[in-house]
Amino acid sequence: MSGNTFGHLFRVTTFGESHGPALGCVIDGCPPRLALSEDDLQPDLDRRRPGQHRLSTARKEGDRARILSGVADGLTTGTPIAVVIENEDARPKAYDEMATLFRPSHADYTYQAKYGHRARSGGGRASARETAARVAAGAVARKLLAEAHGVSIVAWVEQVGDLVARVDGEAVTREDVAASGPIQCPDADAAAAMTALIEAVRKDGDTVGGVIRCVCTGVPAGLGDPVFDKLEARLAAAMLGLPAAKGFDVGSGFAGVAMRGSAHNDPFAIGEGGRVVTTSNRSGGIQGGIANGMPLDFRVAFKPVATHFKAQETVDEAGQAVTFQAKGRHDPCVVPRAVVIVEAMAALVLADAWLRQRAAVGGG
Amino acid sequence: MSGNTFGHLFRVTTFGESHGPALGCVIDGCPPRLALSEDDLQPDLDRRRPGQHRLSTARKEGDRARILSGVADGLTTGTPIAVVIENEDARPKAYDEMATLFRPSHADYTYQAKYGHRARSGGGRASARETAARVAAGAVARKLLAEAHGVSIVAWVEQVGDLVARVDGEAVTREDVAASGPIQCPDADAAAAMTALIEAVRKDGDTVGGVIRCVCTGVPAGLGDPVFDKLEARLAAAMLGLPAAKGFDVGSGFAGVAMRGSAHNDPFAIGEGGRVVTTSNRSGGIQGGIANGMPLDFRVAFKPVATHFKAQETVDEAGQAVTFQAKGRHDPCVVPRAVVIVEAMAALVLADAWLRQRAAVGGG
Amino acid sequence: MSGNTFGHLFRVTTFGESHGPALGCVIDGCPPRLALSEDDLQPDLDRRRPGQHRLSTARKEGDRARILSGVADGLTTGTPIAVVIENEDARPKAYDEMATLFRPSHADYTYQAKYGHRARSGGGRASARETAARVAAGAVARKLLAEAHGVSIVAWVEQVGDLVARVDGEAVTREDVAASGPIQCPDADAAAAMTALIEAVRKDGDTVGGVIRCVCTGVPAGLGDPVFDKLEARLAAAMLGLPAAKGFDVGSGFAGVAMRGSAHNDPFAIGEGGRVVTTSNRSGGIQGGIANGMPLDFRVAFKPVATHFKAQETVDEAGQAVTFQAKGRHDPCVVPRAVVIVEAMAALVLADAWLRQRAAVGGG
Amino acid sequence: MSGNTFGHLFRVTTFGESHGPALGCVIDGCPPRLALSEDDLQPDLDRRRPGQHRLSTARKEGDRARILSGVADGLTTGTPIAVVIENEDARPKAYDEMATLFRPSHADYTYQAKYGHRARSGGGRASARETAARVAAGAVARKLLAEAHGVSIVAWVEQVGDLVARVDGEAVTREDVAASGPIQCPDADAAAAMTALIEAVRKDGDTVGGVIRCVCTGVPAGLGDPVFDKLEARLAAAMLGLPAAKGFDVGSGFAGVAMRGSAHNDPFAIGEGGRVVTTSNRSGGIQGGIANGMPLDFRVAFKPVATHFKAQETVDEAGQAVTFQAKGRHDPCVVPRAVVIVEAMAALVLADAWLRQRAAVGGG
Repeated sequence: MSGNTFGHLFRVTTFGESHGPALGCVIDGCPPRLALSEDDLQPDLDRRRPGQHRLSTARKEGDRARILSGVADGLTTGTPIAVVIENEDARPKAYDEMATLFRPSHADYTYQAKYGHRARSGGGRASARETAARVAAGAVARKLLAEAHGVSIVAWVEQVGDLVARVDGEAVTREDVAASGPIQCPDADAAAAMTALIEAVRKDGDTVGGVIRCVCTGVPAGLGDPVFDKLEARLAAAMLGLPAAKGFDVGSGFAGVAMRGSAHNDPFAIGEGGRVVTTSNRSGGIQGGIANGMPLDFRVAFKPVATHFKAQETVDEAGQAVTFQAKGRHDPCVVPRAVVIVEAMAALVLADAWLRQRAAVGGG
Repeated sequence: MSGNTFGHLFRVTTFGESHGPALGCVIDGCPPRLALSEDDLQPDLDRRRPGQHRLSTARKEGDRARILSGVADGLTTGTPIAVVIENEDARPKAYDEMATLFRPSHADYTYQAKYGHRARSGGGRASARETAARVAAGAVARKLLAEAHGVSIVAWVEQVGDLVARVDGEAVTREDVAASGPIQCPDADAAAAMTALIEAVRKDGDTVGGVIRCVCTGVPAGLGDPVFDKLEARLAAAMLGLPAAKGFDVGSGFAGVAMRGSAHNDPFAIGEGGRVVTTSNRSGGIQGGIANGMPLDFRVAFKPVATHFKAQETVDEAGQAVTFQAKGRHDPCVVPRAVVIVEAMAALVLADAWLRQRAAVGGG
Repeated sequence: MSGNTFGHLFRVTTFGESHGPALGCVIDGCPPRLALSEDDLQPDLDRRRPGQHRLSTARKEGDRARILSGVADGLTTGTPIAVVIENEDARPKAYDEMATLFRPSHADYTYQAKYGHRARSGGGRASARETAARVAAGAVARKLLAEAHGVSIVAWVEQVGDLVARVDGEAVTREDVAASGPIQCPDADAAAAMTALIEAVRKDGDTVGGVIRCVCTGVPAGLGDPVFDKLEARLAAAMLGLPAAKGFDVGSGFAGVAMRGSAHNDPFAIGEGGRVVTTSNRSGGIQGGIANGMPLDFRVAFKPVATHFKAQETVDEAGQAVTFQAKGRHDPCVVPRAVVIVEAMAALVLADAWLRQRAAVGGG
Repeated sequence: MSGNTFGHLFRVTTFGESHGPALGCVIDGCPPRLALSEDDLQPDLDRRRPGQHRLSTARKEGDRARILSGVADGLTTGTPIAVVIENEDARPKAYDEMATLFRPSHADYTYQAKYGHRARSGGGRASARETAARVAAGAVARKLLAEAHGVSIVAWVEQVGDLVARVDGEAVTREDVAASGPIQCPDADAAAAMTALIEAVRKDGDTVGGVIRCVCTGVPAGLGDPVFDKLEARLAAAMLGLPAAKGFDVGSGFAGVAMRGSAHNDPFAIGEGGRVVTTSNRSGGIQGGIANGMPLDFRVAFKPVATHFKAQETVDEAGQAVTFQAKGRHDPCVVPRAVVIVEAMAALVLADAWLRQRAAVGGG
């Protein structure tokens, strides 16, 4: 109840600080008999891992996941799956100098206000490193969904600064995104411009924000619950729980407010195999909080990374005004590495919704 | 676990269909000894209530709340507070004609897919009428927060269609919003234009979307939890759980992604009484998921109302293409009446966060 | 989170004080398309209702349940089922005289210690009247289980004072228990003796305790979860949450501790239709926390009712020693009326376990 | 939601199989600034650990707990505390021979029925080894309670077979129990007889049950919640969730049912410092589900260990009757080692109740 658990039936609890001995998660509620090994987790962990290229921090972490429980003979058993990732490159010393000041737009001050102390070393639970555990859990959920229903979850960088990609959300594949390399943007022209922008921002010692878009296909109609646990409410909670996230919208989103209802509504029609479909998707695949079988389509806004390398005015714990000059290793833009994290959280939302629907009405 | 409960410690369960005998809620976890009566609920219920003016549907509902439990001698007892609102003007017959077709961008099809049936009469739990129960619960939370901490929650209509109000979020009061009348927009020029736009849209048999902005002052630093229950994650879930909501952002939100970190960060300074403040508020009052004591500031996007009065193409349960022509009583724009609902959900989030923080570190 | 909700997926929240306007419950998570009306609730409510005969209090309550939501066209909709029971015979005045003293072995003192006040009138949530809401919810669960799996839940009075019935738990039916009349004990000799004992105790102005035994047949093997939510753990929580309950055991229970393992183990064998059975049932139908398909078999101990009519020494809120002499209307023995409550709680446990199992492995 | 999490605010999730790589727990909700290190966990883990003496199995496990997170500079941080205990002596091969038969009164059959498979090696989550994680978590809760309120939790062996100890529950100390050695019974005569009985049973290749009693002093009046989360309901759930537990009672318990109310009630009086006390404690420290400040006093019944060394009739997965002869390492009586586990679960219940009460009414 301290905010470290996500999901009701497919339920993930994460633990670990950025600079402690290890981090990880416990996945409770994964159905039995899913083929699973550490090899299923590693590709997503590698996508999130820093230190791979110039777009991201130079920190080196193997991010090797070890499964401690819940899998036997290569199959899940239905019991909790604990995953641990050791911190190989923890350097708390590097943070000593800022132990008594409050870095602007970081969690230093709010952790102090909340707990009466704050993590001595690099942000504690507020560190983006915590998301490695989510990625490991998300990889399990993704595999479960793919095997049970053929669900596919694809996210990409839709915007960096004011550069917006043009992507056909219904056609893009995970391979397209992977082929774009570290920038994780399947629009080649935009990808090149975004890469150049991030590089320029980095050279300037600054940072920049961005938007990630995510499309999930194969989601069975009926997932999601009315009222407080509408599918978009669960997705919004999942995404706004990510470090640096500042906004979420689904389907037509903020842009749709200027439309008339007569233009905005998605007409129903009969599609392949007699399936009910809509001929547009401004609903983003959700109506009344429940999936309608069309692709889920949502966006997440991320602010510019708080740690830049220009001098900043702030105060310290004693209430003295001080100037802060960051050092160390930090990404100039969070969105390329956050793509896999957005996918992971989407997978956790959908796996949970699927099990809840199975409880409600039965079925496979 | 079917999505009808919100909150962990200040915990609200709503029930009731639009056209059944009654709706209501059970509020569990309200601390004892808060002065409370039905008179505390009625003003907010009246703000939400339809049929008051030309901007909204002609349906007449007294929306009189009756408290069944949890209050004795004018004080809460610490036990569950049940509130019931009878449906006085239920007219299920009015909906018969559409009982077998799927209204576009409504929940008819998804409820059918989820439950194997759908509400015969006017939307069941997907009806905006369900939000009356949230408003009643929100009024209790609001009073609790006001008395415990002087928290003030003010929301208003920030945008209708493409008309955007100019409002100083730190200065606006509930009285300013109330003074604007049904449009609930404290920018008089914008209010007039919005009213005209809604009226024009209505005459055209159409509908239009909008944006509500909400500012909460007096929120103690420290509320909110790291990781999955970040304060913005809870707010996002609360807001995307509202009917017709399509987006949420906080602080700089979607606009902030184009900024550089050096311009985006909020410098810390020492304010009145030696309190740590920030000299700008692009964080929207939340850093690392935890309130920093500055005003919470967020926006919610609502799509155009799905029920307009132009002919629409759709299909029926038998898979036949049909033309749908809505009748009955419907708002052309949801945002004026949704202002109080946004406030109510914000109050539920903050009351819950406050009790969680009290559990974590003690205090009053 | 204030203890008024039971269950995870079949989830019941009760509300209401003994002497307030009404009490009731919200049942969230009942699957859709179960035939249900108020007539399904009334028989169990009537079994619990006081004032029917000399064994119980003279209070007259119609205990008429009204369903406010969640049912349409005679079928559950999958949305919350709210049930309200008005208090017709509330007499708070009758309790005024004891408003400032602490009745021994009642909740007066502990409510005062917990909430800083206490119910002015007859015990608030500690009143046995709260259990009417559980009985209503239990009737829904019972019907669901009967229709889905043919589960049968039968409880009876096994002991009053030191009088112990002899009952063949595998053969006894609900009809047998009903035929015994108010005493709810299917052993005719014991029933007569128990009735006489209760009558004698009543004439003496005293009260006496008892034991209820409950057997559930048709429970599918596989229900229950390992570790903290073992089926017996859920049953124990359900039963110790009843007013006046002081003990719970299952299968061989407390008596089994004196046995040797070689005599205690239940041998497996092949039964009818090739089904795996055990040839004895000292496990009480549960092994490793999970139902094994044999009848669940457990007992609940209830203390003597705290309100008797002899003078008692106690203290008042001012810390003064006072003598307390109870008046009013009270049962001399709680167990006959508690039989249906035990059944109701067992049904809530099993309905929840069934939905959890369906979430975990699918199926009907 | 798969039964591996206990508690609402002080919340423990355990993971790990008996013969997998490791087991452990995540403790979420421990307040910040509690002094804590692995040394605080080890003494209780050592009490639970097998292989220490002839009363228990010969399996050798160091049971060294490693804290991975949630502690910095020797203090808890308020974030999740993950604890891992590696399995040093896992021997899955020893169990191969029984991989296809169902051991009587074990969880083999029910796991098969639940999950469609069963742990190949030694019981999976049904193994008593899982309780090591609870003991580690309980040690944290115990320290928290001791520092916050001076709560003391003492359990001991009250009965083995038909040998019952005579212990003054209000006077006995943890030191008294420790001084009794492995038998964990502070009545020296009973301890000797129990030790002899267990030894005799072991030589006979058999097993025997027992009862543990637990007394908690210093529990603040007001802990616990009305209705479903009565303090005795939480304790009962905690205890019936232990392997081999078959019964629970509190205060007068099952014996109290034969009493008259006039003899059973606990008179209130004014004690030291003007505190309200009761002059007897048949309530076991709980009235109306809420602690009254007197010692909590409850008992837990454990069946004879299912694994004995006499031949047993059973069936295998193919439905064939087979004779089973156990081998390997097993305790003849579970209660001596379960004493610390009962204490741990009691500590988890009380820590959670304390935080819930702090949320409800504030305070330290």
